[in-house]
Amino acid sequence: MSLIVHKYGGTSMGSTERIRNVARRVAKWHRAGHQMVVVPSAMSGETNRLLGLAKELSPASTTKALQRELDMIASTGEQVSVGLLAIALQAEGLESVSYTGWQVPIRTDSAYTKARIQSIDDARIRADLDAGRVVIITGFQGVDEGGNVTTLGRGGSDTSAVAVAAALKADECLIYTDVDGVYTTDPRIVPEARRLATISFEEMLEMASLGSKVLQIRSVEFAGKYRVPLRVLSSFTDWNIDLAEEAASGTLITFEEAVNMEQAVVSGIAFSRDEAKISLLGVPDRPGIAFSILGPVAEANIDVDVIIQNVSHDGKTDFSFTVPRGDHARALELLKTQVGPAVGASQVVGDARICKVSIVGIGMRSHVGVASRMFRTLADEGINIQMISTSEIKTSVVIDEKYMELAVRALHRAFDLDQAAA
Amino acid sequence: MSLIVHKYGGTSMGSTERIRNVARRVAKWHRAGHQMVVVPSAMSGETNRLLGLAKELSPASTTKALQRELDMIASTGEQVSVGLLAIALQAEGLESVSYTGWQVPIRTDSAYTKARIQSIDDARIRADLDAGRVVIITGFQGVDEGGNVTTLGRGGSDTSAVAVAAALKADECLIYTDVDGVYTTDPRIVPEARRLATISFEEMLEMASLGSKVLQIRSVEFAGKYRVPLRVLSSFTDWNIDLAEEAASGTLITFEEAVNMEQAVVSGIAFSRDEAKISLLGVPDRPGIAFSILGPVAEANIDVDVIIQNVSHDGKTDFSFTVPRGDHARALELLKTQVGPAVGASQVVGDARICKVSIVGIGMRSHVGVASRMFRTLADEGINIQMISTSEIKTSVVIDEKYMELAVRALHRAFDLDQAAA
Repeated sequence: MSLIVHKYGGTSMGSTERIRNVARRVAKWHRAGHQMVVVPSAMSGETNRLLGLAKELSPASTTKALQRELDMIASTGEQVSVGLLAIALQAEGLESVSYTGWQVPIRTDSAYTKARIQSIDDARIRADLDAGRVVIITGFQGVDEGGNVTTLGRGGSDTSAVAVAAALKADECLIYTDVDGVYTTDPRIVPEARRLATISFEEMLEMASLGSKVLQIRSVEFAGKYRVPLRVLSSFTDWNIDLAEEAASGTLITFEEAVNMEQAVVSGIAFSRDEAKISLLGVPDRPGIAFSILGPVAEANIDVDVIIQNVSHDGKTDFSFTVPRGDHARALELLKTQVGPAVGASQVVGDARICKVSIVGIGMRSHVGVASRMFRTLADEGINIQMISTSEIKTSVVIDEKYMELAVRALHRAFDLDQAAA
Repeated sequence: MSLIVHKYGGTSMGSTERIRNVARRVAKWHRAGHQMVVVPSAMSGETNRLLGLAKELSPASTTKALQRELDMIASTGEQVSVGLLAIALQAEGLESVSYTGWQVPIRTDSAYTKARIQSIDDARIRADLDAGRVVIITGFQGVDEGGNVTTLGRGGSDTSAVAVAAALKADECLIYTDVDGVYTTDPRIVPEARRLATISFEEMLEMASLGSKVLQIRSVEFAGKYRVPLRVLSSFTDWNIDLAEEAASGTLITFEEAVNMEQAVVSGIAFSRDEAKISLLGVPDRPGIAFSILGPVAEANIDVDVIIQNVSHDGKTDFSFTVPRGDHARALELLKTQVGPAVGASQVVGDARICKVSIVGIGMRSHVGVASRMFRTLADEGINIQMISTSEIKTSVVIDEKYMELAVRALHRAFDLDQAAA
């Protein structure tokens, strides 16, 4: 008997008919002898509907008091889901019980709309599991020390599921989603993209942070911290497919180096159009210049990703960084009117028509020349590299967005990702 | 400075535009120097939508485990409402905070879908009021000893508001609704019906129990038990009408006999089509016969209202009672197949085409001949009385439903209810 956590996304919970299929799938696992905990998202569209109502009443404000109320409102979507799924399981003849975040309780800090889980009490869940019940727990939410409802931010249900699995020391956490696993790259761009049977935790972390939307990055961090065996698999298979087949499907995120030693040098190609570039030209090169530029950006709550500072020339340097595309106009305004003049930049220029393409692979640790092969491949295609950023297991380049598909396809081929399965 | 509780129904909360108007009305009261607590219902249609989803998944089951989940689901409607209203108040420039039943907490028993309030902790609410905040509390729900969410049943938000007002010893509890007060009878049937400026608690209790749907009966009981000054008034006035005018509008439910001494003998005419009659004819008249008949009916969870047992004749008697019309078929089946044969009834007959018409008035205590004037009025109209039931301040008759409007109009006239205001 294993203890298994299932997580189902909003699409899987999108109608009572789909909820019935989720219940049948969970029942199949329960009848096979597993203790089952299920974390469902809100029905698709529900969270947007609720927050839309709030926005009609207060289009602009972002006070803490308002954010508390947003969490109060948004958390109800998952509460409805757990109740409906519990009922569907009862209709299948199983005993089941649902809990909200505050009932478990799942304790979080008080950062409304983007709270972080601090602890999970497993006593109530264990008692129900031992009594043979399927336990359904709301994703996306918890309760702070003051008894206020908090939410974890978009995609937070993945994190809830992994955190619950960690607290229960579950044998595996299965994330059912609308893709059937993690691919070498997006199959919509490269038809030859292959599903990975396994991927290392570190690679998954890079893929998630680089814009591969399969899992929320915080859920991957959580899985790594507590070494929760995590599997991403499709919720679109028939609920009654063979359980052994289902249990081996999708992509398993592993923590064993041995598995990855056999793998290719590069596991996947990630890419993102969600960024834009800002450059400050002719900045006097003096100590503290990076903080003088990026401090105000951080204060304005704008995330900075790739940062490049060129070597100085005549005491002047060029300083470039990327920001989320949605924040580009605001960041550019801030840099042009305040930061640029303050640091004595000769010019501030922005470019939203860029993209970031990254190769990710744990094998890069032990293989030299991987980055240079990437650069040569892009050069062969006539693609100019604007910025480069590297970590131990990934290399990212910023290029003109019109070359994105071309770059991804060329790199996918150059690293043999379309060849035989791992 | 007074402490005032406002309750708004689902229609008043039916859209963000209407919620904005509720916020403006509450803000007007707050700015006039009152401490404000608001109990809003779910947005109109929301509770039905949620329970409809549940019903799709489990059309028949009524286990305790299922009812627990129904409460989990249905309670979210009010949670969304309190969050939205808190946001709307903040947009009006007020400080506000929302609480669910479990956050207050409002403690109830564990009778899911029809729980009863046991206690309300006022500490958190008082702290917020003292800090100048408007406090918004979910209606319709609470939390049991085990930390499970419970709901109070349909119309429960009235009860929540009155219970909160009682716990806080509020100066007045104002129930904003889609009628502008309590009338001598339904104006749709008698155009001359007048709004009562005041009505005694006992009369209101009878009116509510007799089918006048202005207030949920349990909220009236609660108001009586804790002597909460309760006012029913219209939510359809402009939010910015003069506060003194608004505060004196509607109908005040009073506890002072003195006020009622001045009133008419009969305050109102109530009526209901929601009942049906069952008669057992030729039942051997022996001790315990009433229990033998009504015991199994109660066990089948069918409410019995009016009960009549005629004097016996030749050791046989006729036994009649009314049940909710929705339970009539089920009750008749039970009586015909089991109870009737068991008690030796010669015949079991049912009649769903009846109605109940009642006169209510605290003045009946001190005036003789009120009931006989009612019977004469009906006789003058040629209406046959099938059953009679009396209490200290009301007399009810069961008649053919086709005479209902005629009876109500005749009685309204006979007791001078269409004359000058009280």
